Amino acid sequence: MRLKFPILALTLEIITIILFSVFVVYDDGEKHDGHGDHEHVSTVNHVQHPSPYALFQDVHVMIFIGFGFLMTFLKRYGFSSVGLNLLLAAFALQWGLLMQGLWHLDADGKIRVDVFKMINADFSTATVLISFGAVLGKTSPVQLLIMTILEITIFGINEHLVANVLGANDVGASMIIHAFGAYFGLAVARVLYRPALRDHENNGSVYHSDLFAMIGTVFLWMFWPSFNSAIANPGADQLMAVTNTYFSLAACVLSAYAISSLVEHKGKLDMVHIQNATLAGGVAVGTCADMNIGPFGAMLIGFVAGIISTLGFKFLSPILASHLGIQDTCGVHNLHGMPGILGGIAGIVAVAMGKKNGSAAMQACALASSLGFALVGGAITGLIMKLPFWGQPPDQNCFDDSIYWEVPEEEEAEESLAHGEHSTNKAEA
Amino acid sequence: MRLKFPILALTLEIITIILFSVFVVYDDGEKHDGHGDHEHVSTVNHVQHPSPYALFQDVHVMIFIGFGFLMTFLKRYGFSSVGLNLLLAAFALQWGLLMQGLWHLDADGKIRVDVFKMINADFSTATVLISFGAVLGKTSPVQLLIMTILEITIFGINEHLVANVLGANDVGASMIIHAFGAYFGLAVARVLYRPALRDHENNGSVYHSDLFAMIGTVFLWMFWPSFNSAIANPGADQLMAVTNTYFSLAACVLSAYAISSLVEHKGKLDMVHIQNATLAGGVAVGTCADMNIGPFGAMLIGFVAGIISTLGFKFLSPILASHLGIQDTCGVHNLHGMPGILGGIAGIVAVAMGKKNGSAAMQACALASSLGFALVGGAITGLIMKLPFWGQPPDQNCFDDSIYWEVPEEEEAEESLAHGEHSTNKAEA
Amino acid sequence: MRLKFPILALTLEIITIILFSVFVVYDDGEKHDGHGDHEHVSTVNHVQHPSPYALFQDVHVMIFIGFGFLMTFLKRYGFSSVGLNLLLAAFALQWGLLMQGLWHLDADGKIRVDVFKMINADFSTATVLISFGAVLGKTSPVQLLIMTILEITIFGINEHLVANVLGANDVGASMIIHAFGAYFGLAVARVLYRPALRDHENNGSVYHSDLFAMIGTVFLWMFWPSFNSAIANPGADQLMAVTNTYFSLAACVLSAYAISSLVEHKGKLDMVHIQNATLAGGVAVGTCADMNIGPFGAMLIGFVAGIISTLGFKFLSPILASHLGIQDTCGVHNLHGMPGILGGIAGIVAVAMGKKNGSAAMQACALASSLGFALVGGAITGLIMKLPFWGQPPDQNCFDDSIYWEVPEEEEAEESLAHGEHSTNKAEA
Repeated sequence: MRLKFPILALTLEIITIILFSVFVVYDDGEKHDGHGDHEHVSTVNHVQHPSPYALFQDVHVMIFIGFGFLMTFLKRYGFSSVGLNLLLAAFALQWGLLMQGLWHLDADGKIRVDVFKMINADFSTATVLISFGAVLGKTSPVQLLIMTILEITIFGINEHLVANVLGANDVGASMIIHAFGAYFGLAVARVLYRPALRDHENNGSVYHSDLFAMIGTVFLWMFWPSFNSAIANPGADQLMAVTNTYFSLAACVLSAYAISSLVEHKGKLDMVHIQNATLAGGVAVGTCADMNIGPFGAMLIGFVAGIISTLGFKFLSPILASHLGIQDTCGVHNLHGMPGILGGIAGIVAVAMGKKNGSAAMQACALASSLGFALVGGAITGLIMKLPFWGQPPDQNCFDDSIYWEVPEEEEAEESLAHGEHSTNKAEA
Repeated sequence: MRLKFPILALTLEIITIILFSVFVVYDDGEKHDGHGDHEHVSTVNHVQHPSPYALFQDVHVMIFIGFGFLMTFLKRYGFSSVGLNLLLAAFALQWGLLMQGLWHLDADGKIRVDVFKMINADFSTATVLISFGAVLGKTSPVQLLIMTILEITIFGINEHLVANVLGANDVGASMIIHAFGAYFGLAVARVLYRPALRDHENNGSVYHSDLFAMIGTVFLWMFWPSFNSAIANPGADQLMAVTNTYFSLAACVLSAYAISSLVEHKGKLDMVHIQNATLAGGVAVGTCADMNIGPFGAMLIGFVAGIISTLGFKFLSPILASHLGIQDTCGVHNLHGMPGILGGIAGIVAVAMGKKNGSAAMQACALASSLGFALVGGAITGLIMKLPFWGQPPDQNCFDDSIYWEVPEEEEAEESLAHGEHSTNKAEA
Repeated sequence: MRLKFPILALTLEIITIILFSVFVVYDDGEKHDGHGDHEHVSTVNHVQHPSPYALFQDVHVMIFIGFGFLMTFLKRYGFSSVGLNLLLAAFALQWGLLMQGLWHLDADGKIRVDVFKMINADFSTATVLISFGAVLGKTSPVQLLIMTILEITIFGINEHLVANVLGANDVGASMIIHAFGAYFGLAVARVLYRPALRDHENNGSVYHSDLFAMIGTVFLWMFWPSFNSAIANPGADQLMAVTNTYFSLAACVLSAYAISSLVEHKGKLDMVHIQNATLAGGVAVGTCADMNIGPFGAMLIGFVAGIISTLGFKFLSPILASHLGIQDTCGVHNLHGMPGILGGIAGIVAVAMGKKNGSAAMQACALASSLGFALVGGAITGLIMKLPFWGQPPDQNCFDDSIYWEVPEEEEAEESLAHGEHSTNKAEA
């Protein structure tokens, strides 16, 4: 960590700045007139039309607060969760803008930045943060920056293939972000498997860390309609994407709570389920979000996603860890993996039923492509991350901020004890 | 809890999905052209015109982050506060959309969901969350789901009566949401009164739980102008609602702080007052928000509301608890009850003074109707909730997450002590 | 505190309400037609056009959540940080609206409140909150209210001079808010210097207080593009301000993390740097935000700002405290002071290079004016605040909520210990 991290971070940023100086310019609103359709629609249904910038900011909150705080549930890894989330996302959005933009250069070889490009850059960032959840607590900042570069690059290829070559629908990105990010991260986690991390004492929460995580959960839950509608066609399609996501998430909450209570000891609720499975409805309705499936259809998808996700946390995750060597710290398989596949399948069915123009076969190819790129790309990335000189934390330092952060530790504990004793003394006096 | 809660939650959600499949469709933007006026106004004053979707998201944040975290002030009830808030709100918004929509079915018997319907669904949710504050810590999830169904249904009736039959003004819903929700909850709390809960050891805060609660307070405070203006007529009226609420809240902060310091020991500030009474200005200016009362008038209302609310916490709440058997956990009487009535009265006066078209008599009827439905509806709901098979928590388990949640308790405390000792040892070594 | 604070707060609010009754009216959208240009631009580039109200709400979140929680890093000063932030901001926005409005009275002697006036009121508030950071933990609420009145008044003069007399560019307010607020606060801190506060035991963080502070950091980081673009000309200029700020901040994160790791023991990251220096890019790009410096230029500014800010925390702040008697609790010199000057200089260079219409000399005068008013104004304000009857906290009570707040202290500590012992017993049993 001593020098590798600062050198890598500074080098990456300098290279990025140079690439930006070559490729990236402002959108001047003239040459880049591809959004003419938007103008037209916006006059038809102006009142209901969300502003792209407002949608961007909602997505931004999901990326930085949502993902960042969702991962603070670990008792001693909060600095890293929200701090490395900020680091990775800040780099990923720059890199993502380049990697997506290179597939769509303007005639003069430039990438013109507008709000939609910024939304897409945030989207590419989401894949990295999902994968980060799978390897949370077990990797160094250097390893994570390497994962960011590779994952965003591979994401860019798959996204281009799915959206432009296959022409598949995936407005809320169940396949190209959620399933891709989850299985990419799981492949990395499998390659980095370490038996000694099983039942690690720091791999758990305390009361207040679970509350911090709920900040992340609730912001993700609230703004998911913005995520799934941000790049939808303005007007009826976009409103449909908002509506479907809103109802899918609402139904998902009920089923996640019910199943959590059903499978837990004495009918209690489990914070891990509530923090995560309540969001599965947003993932699973992603591909179908702008399809005419009816509010009722969206609710069914969310309802099923909440059940699958909660059952996955309870029954599948332990099996993956113990039998397949897949240690999935945040359970991204349950929140993004299975619900992402469910979303992809729902999209195939919905397109086959004519709920949206498209080809069910192309939808299936898009799902297969996303899974294939994720698993192969993740495995290769994992192998590179496994090279011995990236400073991977030793087993006993995993899930612990103090290896990478100045933590107010001894002082805090002593102070807290001293404060306790002091107060007791005062009470006695 | 073992089976009752999951069965009830799953059943309610399945029934809701079936009702949605019968009644709810997307707004296609064509048949439902009642918002033509909005189009017109938006061209007149486009720049200042907030987007309905942005207002919806602000309200959404108030409902899920604002109410959810405001109630996390209890030292051992944070999971339930933010978690049950999410559960109840997710169900309430579905049920609210149906209960409000059934009064306004389109010609083909359908409810067309648009952003305004979603805002109204969130509004109906607010009533339940206010009542939840009165009974916080003393009720089971099953009891709360039952309260949600009944309260939303009764709210729908009163809202229809006030808005459509009486034609009263209540743009920021001082009467139909705040006063209604508060007195409904207080009636429930009265019926569920348990003397043994007085001075319950868990009915208090710790340092960090008070900070979590401030997240709720500040988001409520910031976005209240959106709440009070969300369904105002776009243009001057809506801007007036924003402006009045903004200034009322600002003035309210000063008076709440001043009175808190004035009535507390040694001039200290009390977190309970700051968390709640600073918001009373938003409640009290609700009915008048889109009336031409002048920024100065709005500030006067907020100033008075901050005083009344703080005094209520200090002097009235203890009396209600000890003499009237009304245990109001969050003090909703002080934040929503009295300021809601103040708002209703201000509305009567303002309409009488011609600050808005309308009838002062109808305004008074609207206030009386809201209070009447709340008290009678709350009492009946309380009696139903009191039936012995809903799993009400025993006295000693009140205000404690561990009866309904898997709490990282023993582990946490031991870990924290062990960590402390460990550090001390390290310091000694 | 006993009576001074409530009397001052009530008096200020009553005076403000009276001034509002004389001067402040709603914007009726007719007389006040200065925003006609906006209308025009908005039709050209409607889709990309952020709504002023959405920008206002983003800025509002920065002021109340961002600044408020950023300062909760202190272990025992969280109530004051977020609570006094709310108090000061609520008063400052009212006073700021008056102080700015008095320079621009309409023909009938009125101030017409619209969303832009509310944004500017929030802006003037930011200066006070920056200065608050410099004196955090060492001043009484009464002292802070006095500082608010004086600082806002002086800010109004300097803002009028810079914007209207000099005609300088400062869209993101690097000079008139950030540098001004920082050097004003530092001048106050210098006058209030108390040697006994060096290495005060309460002037530090605990684990969870650092996490609360990250809520502030991340919201500031995310919404800074809205801050820097809120009063830009709609259309291409505004989009440029968004884009430049977005990229400057992203680059700044990488350099702040790299330098933090480089200068700390064993390459660890320091939370103080991450909480603050990651934001320096937003400050430094402020003046240039709507200038045609290229995304690449914005990134360079952010990159340099992250380095300067981190180095300032590590090397300069200790020198200021030990040699110059400037105790800067939050390090505002590193986050707002030096990056603000950097932003002012970047603006001079950019205007000289023709990146924006204007005069480099006027830019330089604007920077000098902002620094001059800040230092002189701050020194005078500090002298007034030093008068012995404002209830300044004694040395041993600094950085401690319990002097001004009812804190759940003894109970909490005992409860926490008792809870720990109780659990241990349970585990033993």
